[in-house]
Parts: sequence; C-alpha cells; structure tokens
Amino acid sequence: MCKGDDVHCPHFEEHYATFKEDMNAERRSFLRSGLFAAGGLSAIGAAGGLSLVTPTLAQASEARQPEKRAFHYLPANSDTVHWGYFSKTLKPQVECDSGDIVTIETLTHHAGDDTERMVEGDEGAESVYLWTKDKKGVDRRGAGSTDPNVYKIGSGDGQGVHIMTGPVHVRGAEPGDVLEVRILDCVPRESGNPKYAGKSFGSNAAAWWGFHYNDMLNDAKREVITIYEVDASGSKSWAEAVYNFKWVPQTDPFGVTHTTIDYPGVPVDHSLTTRNYDVLKGIRIPIRPHFGTLGVAPAEADFVDSVPPSYTGGNVDNWRIGKGATMYYPVSVEGALLSVGDPHASQGDSELCGTAIECSLTGTFQLILHKKADLAGTPLEELKYPMLETQSEWLVHGFSVPNYLKELGATAQSDIYSKSSIDAAMRDAFRKMRKFLMTTKGLTEDEAHSLMSVGVDFGITQVVDGNWGVHAIIRKDIFAGRA
Amino acid sequence: MCKGDDVHCPHFEEHYATFKEDMNAERRSFLRSGLFAAGGLSAIGAAGGLSLVTPTLAQASEARQPEKRAFHYLPANSDTVHWGYFSKTLKPQVECDSGDIVTIETLTHHAGDDTERMVEGDEGAESVYLWTKDKKGVDRRGAGSTDPNVYKIGSGDGQGVHIMTGPVHVRGAEPGDVLEVRILDCVPRESGNPKYAGKSFGSNAAAWWGFHYNDMLNDAKREVITIYEVDASGSKSWAEAVYNFKWVPQTDPFGVTHTTIDYPGVPVDHSLTTRNYDVLKGIRIPIRPHFGTLGVAPAEADFVDSVPPSYTGGNVDNWRIGKGATMYYPVSVEGALLSVGDPHASQGDSELCGTAIECSLTGTFQLILHKKADLAGTPLEELKYPMLETQSEWLVHGFSVPNYLKELGATAQSDIYSKSSIDAAMRDAFRKMRKFLMTTKGLTEDEAHSLMSVGVDFGITQVVDGNWGVHAIIRKDIFAGRA
Repeated sequence: MCKGDDVHCPHFEEHYATFKEDMNAERRSFLRSGLFAAGGLSAIGAAGGLSLVTPTLAQASEARQPEKRAFHYLPANSDTVHWGYFSKTLKPQVECDSGDIVTIETLTHHAGDDTERMVEGDEGAESVYLWTKDKKGVDRRGAGSTDPNVYKIGSGDGQGVHIMTGPVHVRGAEPGDVLEVRILDCVPRESGNPKYAGKSFGSNAAAWWGFHYNDMLNDAKREVITIYEVDASGSKSWAEAVYNFKWVPQTDPFGVTHTTIDYPGVPVDHSLTTRNYDVLKGIRIPIRPHFGTLGVAPAEADFVDSVPPSYTGGNVDNWRIGKGATMYYPVSVEGALLSVGDPHASQGDSELCGTAIECSLTGTFQLILHKKADLAGTPLEELKYPMLETQSEWLVHGFSVPNYLKELGATAQSDIYSKSSIDAAMRDAFRKMRKFLMTTKGLTEDEAHSLMSVGVDFGITQVVDGNWGVHAIIRKDIFAGRA
Repeated sequence: MCKGDDVHCPHFEEHYATFKEDMNAERRSFLRSGLFAAGGLSAIGAAGGLSLVTPTLAQASEARQPEKRAFHYLPANSDTVHWGYFSKTLKPQVECDSGDIVTIETLTHHAGDDTERMVEGDEGAESVYLWTKDKKGVDRRGAGSTDPNVYKIGSGDGQGVHIMTGPVHVRGAEPGDVLEVRILDCVPRESGNPKYAGKSFGSNAAAWWGFHYNDMLNDAKREVITIYEVDASGSKSWAEAVYNFKWVPQTDPFGVTHTTIDYPGVPVDHSLTTRNYDVLKGIRIPIRPHFGTLGVAPAEADFVDSVPPSYTGGNVDNWRIGKGATMYYPVSVEGALLSVGDPHASQGDSELCGTAIECSLTGTFQLILHKKADLAGTPLEELKYPMLETQSEWLVHGFSVPNYLKELGATAQSDIYSKSSIDAAMRDAFRKMRKFLMTTKGLTEDEAHSLMSVGVDFGITQVVDGNWGVHAIIRKDIFAGRA
C-alpha cells in the first residue's frame, strides 16, 4: 500500500499528507524522548550540556534554517543509487535545507543471495538488480575501473560493495561544518513478492573477508550464506534463520564466473546450490535495525571504496546507529553529500563472519547543519570523526588508520586492507575519547585517563572492513550531577 | 558492628546465626532470580539447558554433597592472604565441601595510596599493610625471588600485585573437574577509621603499565592516583572522586625508593605529595562491584604472578564478575585452591589506565564441585577456560595467549608481557565462542559462524594485564525458543 511514497497511487496526495503528519509526530517524539533521557531542557542547561548541541548552538543553527521545513522522499532505484563507493562527483538526488526531513529507502547489496525473497516484485530492487546478458541496472559496482580493458570481474571491480542511496546535498554545507543526522525511524522493507507478503528477509554471508575465514576447523575453506526472516510487523523482536547454503561458483549474466563472493549483486542460481533448511532451529536473533554505512563524501578522492570506514563515517558498522540515534559528521565537501546504505536487521559487535543480517530498510532522517562559525566553544568544534549519540550514551569511533585516505597516500585504498588491527583501532578510540572528555567536558588529561578506566567501555565494532573499528562508550548520566 | 564475623563480639553466636539465615535467604533469592530469568525450571528442561549446569548434572553434583551445608567465614589478615601470586603450594585457609558457602573478605592492594582512609582502624588491613623498618606484615609480594641477594626492590619483587585471600580447598576436587563459583553477594568494606565511618574508599592509579602511559600529551610521563569515595550504604549507585595526586618517589620503611609504582603496598607519604581536591567535580561513576582476580591455582608452576589472567581465571578483570554472576573454572590441582582478591568498586571495559576503582570488598560465594565423571555430554565437559554466566548472558574470555604458562615454556611469566595483543585475544575469544556454541548448543560450525556475526558482542576486557583480554557475550534469550 502507498504510504505517501508512491506517486502513481490515486490517493498519493492524501497519503503523503498523512505521512508528513506522522513524520512530524515521530520527530516530536524523538526530540521529547531525547530530552527526557537527559532530564529535560532545563537539566540540559544546568548540566552544562547533556546533548552535544548546546542550546546556543541549537538556536544559532535553527536561525539559519528556512521558516518552513520540507519533507523529501528518496526511493531506491537504479537512478537514485550508486553502488560500492562514496563520491564527491555525484549528482545529488535530493537537495534539502538544514532542518529538513528526508525519508530514504536503502537496499541490501546481498539481495542477490535470494532474489525470489528480496528482489522479485519490488520495483526499486528489480531496477537496481537488473542484469541481463546485455545490460545491468547499475553498471559500476565499486571504486575500481569502469574500463572493460582494465577491470577484471566487472565495472568498478567490486572494490566497494554497498548499494548507497543518495547523495543528499544539504544547502550551505561547507568543509569545516558539522552535519547532524537524526535517525527518526528505521523499518524493514517488506518483500515485494506476494508469496512472502508482510515478511522481510536478510542475508548473512560468512565470506572470505570474515575474521573466521582462515581459521576454520580442519583447514576448510568455504563461504556459507544464511537467509534470515525478519519480522516487519513489529510484533516480534527477533529474526530467525530460514535456510543456508554453501557458495558454489556462479556465472553472472555477462559470463564471468565468481568462485568466491567477489562482486556484489551476482544473482545466485539456486539450481546450483543445496539449500539446508535445518539451520539454527529455535534460535531467535534480537533485532537491531541500523544502517551499516551512513556518511558524507570525503574530499580526498573522487571515488572511494565503500568498505573501509573513515573520518567521514561510511561503513562504521555500529549496530547502535539505528532509530533514536544521532550521528555527527565533519563535512568534507560542499553540500556534505550524505549517502545511506548497507542496511542491517541485526549485527553483533565485531560483525565476525563478514556481514550482518543484510536486510533492506527505509530510514527517516532529519538533517541539521551546524556552521563552522557557530561551533567555536561547543562540543562539536573541530570534530574530526564520526560521533554517535544515543539517548543515553556518547560513542567515539576509533579505526586502525583514522583518516586512511590522507595518511596512506596515493595507494591508500588498497593499502588499508593490510593495516587491519584492533590494537591500532583501540589506540585511536582511546585518543578520541580522551580528546572528547577534555574538549567537550572540560576535564584535565589526568581526569580523562581516570574516568576512561573506571567509566568508559571499549568494544570491538568490526573486524571485517579493512579499517577495523573499536568504539568507546560513555554514559550520559555520569555527568548528570554536574553543577 | 559484628555481622557474625567477629569472634570477639559478645553476641557472636547470635549474630552468626542471623548471618547464616541471611545467607540462606540470599542463596535462595539468587537461585530463584536465576531461574526466573531463564523462565523457570520447566523452561530450562524444555529449552535444553538455559543454565550451563543441566538438571542431571545438578542432581549428580548435589548427590555428592554432604547432607548439611556449612558456612565459612574467611577474614582478610596477614595470616589469611598471599600477596601477588597464585600457588598450588599454599596451605588452605578454609577446607570446605561442595555446596558450602564461604564469605571471604578481600583487601585492595592500593590501600597504601591513602592509608588514613583505607587501612587505619581496620584490624585486618593493618595487619596486612604493617611495614616498619624491621618487619612487614606480609613479606613476600609477588612471584619473584624471596632471597634478599636476588630480588631488587623487595621480597617477591612485585612480580604480581594482588592481595589474595585464601586459598579455599574444596574437598574432593581434582584436575579435570569443574568448580562452579556463585557470587551470592559482594559489598564494599567500610573504612575502619572513625573519621570516615560509614564510608568506603578506592584508589585508581593511572600507572606505567596503563594503555595510555606512553601516549600522553606533550610526551609527558607521570603516574597519577585518584582516590574515590564509594557509597557503602546502597543508597547511591555511584562513586565520586575525592582528590588526586601525582606519584612522587616514595621510600618504603626498608629504605628502598620507588620512583614509580613498582612494588605493592608502599605506604604513600602524603607530606611529599600535592593533593588536588578539584577533581572530576560532579562526575558520578556508576558502581559495578566485582572481583578483578578470582580463580584457582594452576598446576604449571609453584608461584604464578597474579597479573596475567589464564585458563584458571585469576586476573580476568571483567566487571561482570559481581553479585549474581557465576564463574566456572577448570580445576587444575587437587582441592582447586580458590583465591580471591583485586576487589573493584567499578571498572570500564579495557581498564584503560591500568587499574579500576580498587576498593576492598567482601564476597559471599557458594562453591559447587562438578566431578569429571559427571560432565560427559554436558556443556561443562572439557571446559578449558574461565567461563562466566550472568542471569541473562554467557561469556567466554579470550586472551592473547590462552594458557601462557604452558605455551610459552620456562620463561612464560616474563615473556607474556611482550605478547600483549587485542588482535590475538580476539582470535582466542572467537575460537572459544565457536567451541561453546558447537559443543554446548549443538550448532554446526557454519551455524556458529553466522550466529557469532549477528548475535554475539565482542568487547575489550582489559589491555593492562600482560595477557590482554577480549570477552564474547551471548544472550541466553537467543535460545529461549528452542524446542
């Protein structure tokens, strides 16, 4: 049914109006709950800032917004997605003002693992996944070459895998500004196939880039994909496995054979696989819908592999980046150019086997621009990394190489994969949390060291994205007693 | 006031009777709450085991217990503690039967940082910390040499730092058995100084072995100690800093000068320090009372440095090892020889700066022996590492080198400090969780890989104990739907 998102629906206008009302309510509820967790507006003032956005900054940023907020809807289809990379050269799909709300559909790049459940009957997904012997819906997949004389397995060479919807151009955004991205909602996409009406599905690939891969029992080497059913109705809080199968060589419609999972969107021919339905019986995976890849375009290169996360965010793969969370990104190029993809129904800290439950989701975001001129003296001044705020916590993200594009030079995009290290990411997370506590909370270095040891939790975000991640979590209520 | 723990009290017998009643109630409540979380006894049976102890194993182990359970009280004093090491050669302080309940006092090894608050007026602590020019209450501190011609800074050379109470000998325990340690209670120890009646204190040392130490701003090198006040009444759920000071060279009563924190129990002379009371104002550290070091004696060496954790547990430093948690240890020597120390009022995942809020605590434990003959086919069969069960989760502990005493040979106890690596600990945690899921939950390897990626959280336990730690957490309710 049209939810205000189908322009062909005869009742589109009416549905869209309802959608906007709902969004307004969602937004109000998000703000309220955020304030509630922090003890209300007065507490925020009194506590010297339990949100990263100080009341003064909030006012300054709001004063720069147009009087009326617009709502935008960005569907996912072959025209609105770019596959496998961030790029400052892309034409924006939406132009919006600070304060606007944008609903963005995202598609998992693993839908080819079960096209029957995740592509068929879904117009947007079908247009993206279209691949005949003559044509691909989206030709380029990855930051690699698009020259048939150069690439080895397909356009873009699979150097980057995520289907990214966008970019969204935020008017007035310039390098040095901070983009606040509030995730107002995040819901699974229903299967377009009438056979699976009301259901959603996701795929988990235990793949060659997984942490486990060179450490399997009996020195085995195999890639195994598990298809999960995800409740889209909201009545269950878990996902359950449907079946799994071992990857066997798949020949794509252009005639290239993929002996491993080396190029995204290859439609799996299940006449070649053996599906095992006796899998993870009775196991309920708690749902944590979130966006694995969300971020702004970096300035350092024209085409940037979507796999390694960086200072502009991207493939951070922290399952806490879901409904109710807010991300802050340093703007690197004009317009910010926000893209969203890699939707996950659930993931554990580490994303051990290489992927999460990769499941298409639709998100609703409010984008708020904070201009550099207004940032001085606020917690967001000189933000140099993707920062996460939930209703009860702040998180910084450390990486093996914080800004690998800059630090590793011309060969950064290939070299980063040899730099993977949790030890290095821990070092970076420690330094970022120390800086956060010193600049944002005004602690001395010694105070920060002590607080980090007794009140900050360091966890392993992911060990599969080339640039491995460690996050540091500090609870907001630690500061609730400040005068 | 005597709580059934002071044999000199004129009402000792009456108080001890009350204490035993309370303990019985605590134990019942612990069991009930554990069962409740798992959905009750019938659910445990139906779900194929939501506790690691199957009903059959529980019956078998209980059948081996004496009909009546005994209560034991082990105070901490110079006779009942060993300082800085585990040892299979130690004379037991308590002999108990499986099923018995033991209350054990533990003392922090950082009480010398503020003897006024943490030693004075506390008979047990005074006896342990006694150090005049002629005598130490506990001479040996560490697994190093006790020969004055060999050691450099003091007996034991500080190769191991924790004041360990025990050991407790569990009758009938043999290598190959599993010791279940239920933590029924865990409470802060009140200051013995009337000036601080009703208050408890702890020390956090940002020390040379901290993760931050070689990474301070402006290439500085300094050790800083923060004294925290910990609410012992239960009315507040947080600790607050009292003051901090920079470590300056301290000359111990035997005349050795300690320019860094290199030997435990050196009484800090505060006429030499500068105390800064303007520290962490209004910051409330959530309380997580737990035992940093809890474990059984390893067979591999006579004296084992208490700092690196190992397969027998020891200095695991996971803040989840507190009230309501259960640890399972592989028994390595006859009698198991359980020791407890390194009490912490709170700690974050990573224990970044080298220590937690080091604060004396008293714990009450029920010790249950599971004989090797009864373990076949149960989740505890061939347990080779310290396993943690909370009311809602299971955790395995990975280390840089899982059994370093065996793997690194004769020089293991010094070599382990050069093997510190989160990457290696992650590898071990992954392997242990995979084995746990395959043996305990009957999953295939492929099922385990998928579940670990989408439903298991990997976190950084500590990066300061030589043998660094990563824990993997899986929620019990993931299995609640199993037939």
